[in-house]
Amino acid sequence: MHPKLLRSNLLLFFLVTAALSGFAQTGGPAAGAPVLHSSANAATEDSLLIRRLADTILTDGRTYGNLRLLTKNVGPRLSGSAGYYKAEKWGQQVLQEASADKVWLQECMVPHWVRGGKDSASWIAGGAQDKNLYRGLDVLALGNSQGTGPKGIKAPVMLINNFDELEQRKDEVKGKIVFYNYPFNPLFVETFQAYGDAVRYRGGGASRAAKYGAVGVIVRSMSSSIDNTPHTGALSYNDSFPKIPAVAVGLRDADKLAAQLEQHKPVDVFLRTNAHMLPDTAAHNVIGELKGTEFPDQYITVGGHLDSWDPAEGAMDDGAGCVQSIEVLRALKAIGYRPRHTIRVVLFANEENGGRGGRKYAEAAKAAGEQHLLGLESDNGGFTPRGFTLSLPADKLAAIQPWVKLLKPYGVYELEQGGGGSDVGPMARQLGAVVGELRPDSQRYFEYHHARNDVLENVNKRELEMGAVNMAALIYLVDKYGL
Amino acid sequence: MHPKLLRSNLLLFFLVTAALSGFAQTGGPAAGAPVLHSSANAATEDSLLIRRLADTILTDGRTYGNLRLLTKNVGPRLSGSAGYYKAEKWGQQVLQEASADKVWLQECMVPHWVRGGKDSASWIAGGAQDKNLYRGLDVLALGNSQGTGPKGIKAPVMLINNFDELEQRKDEVKGKIVFYNYPFNPLFVETFQAYGDAVRYRGGGASRAAKYGAVGVIVRSMSSSIDNTPHTGALSYNDSFPKIPAVAVGLRDADKLAAQLEQHKPVDVFLRTNAHMLPDTAAHNVIGELKGTEFPDQYITVGGHLDSWDPAEGAMDDGAGCVQSIEVLRALKAIGYRPRHTIRVVLFANEENGGRGGRKYAEAAKAAGEQHLLGLESDNGGFTPRGFTLSLPADKLAAIQPWVKLLKPYGVYELEQGGGGSDVGPMARQLGAVVGELRPDSQRYFEYHHARNDVLENVNKRELEMGAVNMAALIYLVDKYGL
Repeated sequence: MHPKLLRSNLLLFFLVTAALSGFAQTGGPAAGAPVLHSSANAATEDSLLIRRLADTILTDGRTYGNLRLLTKNVGPRLSGSAGYYKAEKWGQQVLQEASADKVWLQECMVPHWVRGGKDSASWIAGGAQDKNLYRGLDVLALGNSQGTGPKGIKAPVMLINNFDELEQRKDEVKGKIVFYNYPFNPLFVETFQAYGDAVRYRGGGASRAAKYGAVGVIVRSMSSSIDNTPHTGALSYNDSFPKIPAVAVGLRDADKLAAQLEQHKPVDVFLRTNAHMLPDTAAHNVIGELKGTEFPDQYITVGGHLDSWDPAEGAMDDGAGCVQSIEVLRALKAIGYRPRHTIRVVLFANEENGGRGGRKYAEAAKAAGEQHLLGLESDNGGFTPRGFTLSLPADKLAAIQPWVKLLKPYGVYELEQGGGGSDVGPMARQLGAVVGELRPDSQRYFEYHHARNDVLENVNKRELEMGAVNMAALIYLVDKYGL
Repeated sequence: MHPKLLRSNLLLFFLVTAALSGFAQTGGPAAGAPVLHSSANAATEDSLLIRRLADTILTDGRTYGNLRLLTKNVGPRLSGSAGYYKAEKWGQQVLQEASADKVWLQECMVPHWVRGGKDSASWIAGGAQDKNLYRGLDVLALGNSQGTGPKGIKAPVMLINNFDELEQRKDEVKGKIVFYNYPFNPLFVETFQAYGDAVRYRGGGASRAAKYGAVGVIVRSMSSSIDNTPHTGALSYNDSFPKIPAVAVGLRDADKLAAQLEQHKPVDVFLRTNAHMLPDTAAHNVIGELKGTEFPDQYITVGGHLDSWDPAEGAMDDGAGCVQSIEVLRALKAIGYRPRHTIRVVLFANEENGGRGGRKYAEAAKAAGEQHLLGLESDNGGFTPRGFTLSLPADKLAAIQPWVKLLKPYGVYELEQGGGGSDVGPMARQLGAVVGELRPDSQRYFEYHHARNDVLENVNKRELEMGAVNMAALIYLVDKYGL
């Protein structure tokens, strides 16, 4: 193997490609937008620098190796759990190994929810005690939910397809376990739209049913999967109503349960969950930075969240975003790039069931009077990248479209208007920062999201790396040209 | 679930989206290019029709179910094997179920290579018989290769990094097993470029080594994988030299072998492969068509290849392309679209080790004086779609760029200049047809290509379907507007 020879050949190849593909023809920036040095020379320089970032990430990269350590050595890391503190240590260590100038912890108080043991459920068709009609249900208690207690609960199940139906049939709800069977709509090409459409039932379904006297809730998982894995995730109780237990079921169980109930065959379900909230506890955002050479007091933040749901390794949610963000710093440093602005990698605490880490980071930055150019997040899975969203006005977004030519060789076709994820959202509100996020291909995400199969083996090394390449390239361009 | 309600809401949503996203502003076609009805009305009509194609593929589609039957009930189906004839029956049946107007077989003679039993190999470090230094190698004989015979061969191994080195050291080759350790270069973002770069060693390495007296060849697999799975594939012998046995090894074994040899520690390898060629045998392309209403004698062909390598199920190579092509026909028929031109689905015979099916189809079409507008192929894996290549001149390609707006909601960003795959290639040469292929994301393909893990479980249902959606949309647009 002669990697050096290969690399210089490729550099030449990409240089020629870049020149031929018309970088020289990119138009000037729109009025009022940041000045882009869109001359052929600057574009070639950018193209070559991005190629060097890609080279180090694709050959000497640490994304996948770091993810292996996080998933296999640390594992599940819900806020307040022992795993989370182990993850903090992992984060500090890998940021140091990535050659951050400085690494530190930022404390915040986080909710401390515990599952408290294995969830169990079963159903009795016909409402009878006939053993032949008795079958297990694979369930996962929803995050932040209150358990049934050790004795469990048993009640007739009521099939509810949507909130309209709940309102129409509210008089029948009392004493029942409400089974929300709202589908994850396959007609949404972008699966996050299907999630946004269905997640209301997980988030608010328990309290809406409790309002009418329900004693428990079963929610069809928000998943495009063809298996029976239940997908958990947070609910929020409305304090005006009793906090009833709530669980997710996989799609096959949901279909079987619905088929029974649609034929008006009564079904009783027995549920036992042990979940409960403990008092808030201290956790930390893990932060590493590269000091800016020209504008050390101006910040560009890139991050993912360090916490993950307890039943799995949190490989794509959001181990992927963490290791990609760390890789941005490592790659910039590895190629000897000295950023103009200070670049911060933040591994946020408590995204999954509280969002406290993201809020803390923005509040602290505001209190310190920091100026933030960009908060970029990766929390949509480590899949092949397709684009970025940025919260820029139309004219500024138009001005940076020439960057797409620089990213396209690495699979990013779009810089679109849109918000960031939930961890950088507070930076927009508190600091007026531009926020954004990586948009990888979404087709596979909801097969693993918040489920036991969110493990390393379902993250592809190359796809993960390509996300990091594009994130590093975007951070470089923002550092060089501003926003 | 109220799928009908969901669908009509989505139709409205997409109608509005289409209108807002500026279909009305698409420019007119370039001079000499086919006339595009780029009025707002036509674009909206196209958008709605494509949405209907997507709806049936994403909700009532048969792509994944058909692939399950092909992979699990038929399985491996190399040319001449019993599996191939079973696959022909599968193809006829699913084309009939998809409501093709007519389904038939087109005979062609194909090579009949058999592996002849399990391949085996082991190596003895130090060249000694010391049992402690003896270890198994996981190998797969290359397709079309001649086996060692039942006694196997044992010879010292010579590490060769590339053909230049082979030429420089040609005097040392006699009596050796040449081990080509040419890397699958991770710096190529598009993995097919890395494949094109490395596959020379599999295709021609045996005869080039035999020329200098080598007795066997071991080839590092063309793979981006991080496991040790060997990846087979065809070689071509040069009849001027002895037909020496040749096998592929996985990347971990290749690295271990190379590490030993780079330290100048002698290694003997024992190889036993049982492969041989039998006389050519008859096989068939399986063809189904929808008769055109206006131009029944003008053809649009869409296809994949039905044969697959023997160690696996051929799920992505190329079960995916077969079921996607059949789905194009099924979906067009299911929504009641009546094509202007005759649309043919072709499941090609013998792509893997001869290419006879593709050549036969083009020769027969030429003999019949058929006029072919387009030959579209899907043979790059069932991954999330990114674009199409088409063998159009620049002006005609420019003229159809407004189609990208219609495909983009389904993930296709590019209609690029480029050839078709190897099965439609002969249509360009023999018939002067435009040829093209689906370009899905390439990051994962070479983890499974020609290896034992090319199984259904590694194909994602949604990604497979999204490819079919875009293929159906493109075929519709070509049928409506020409090329």
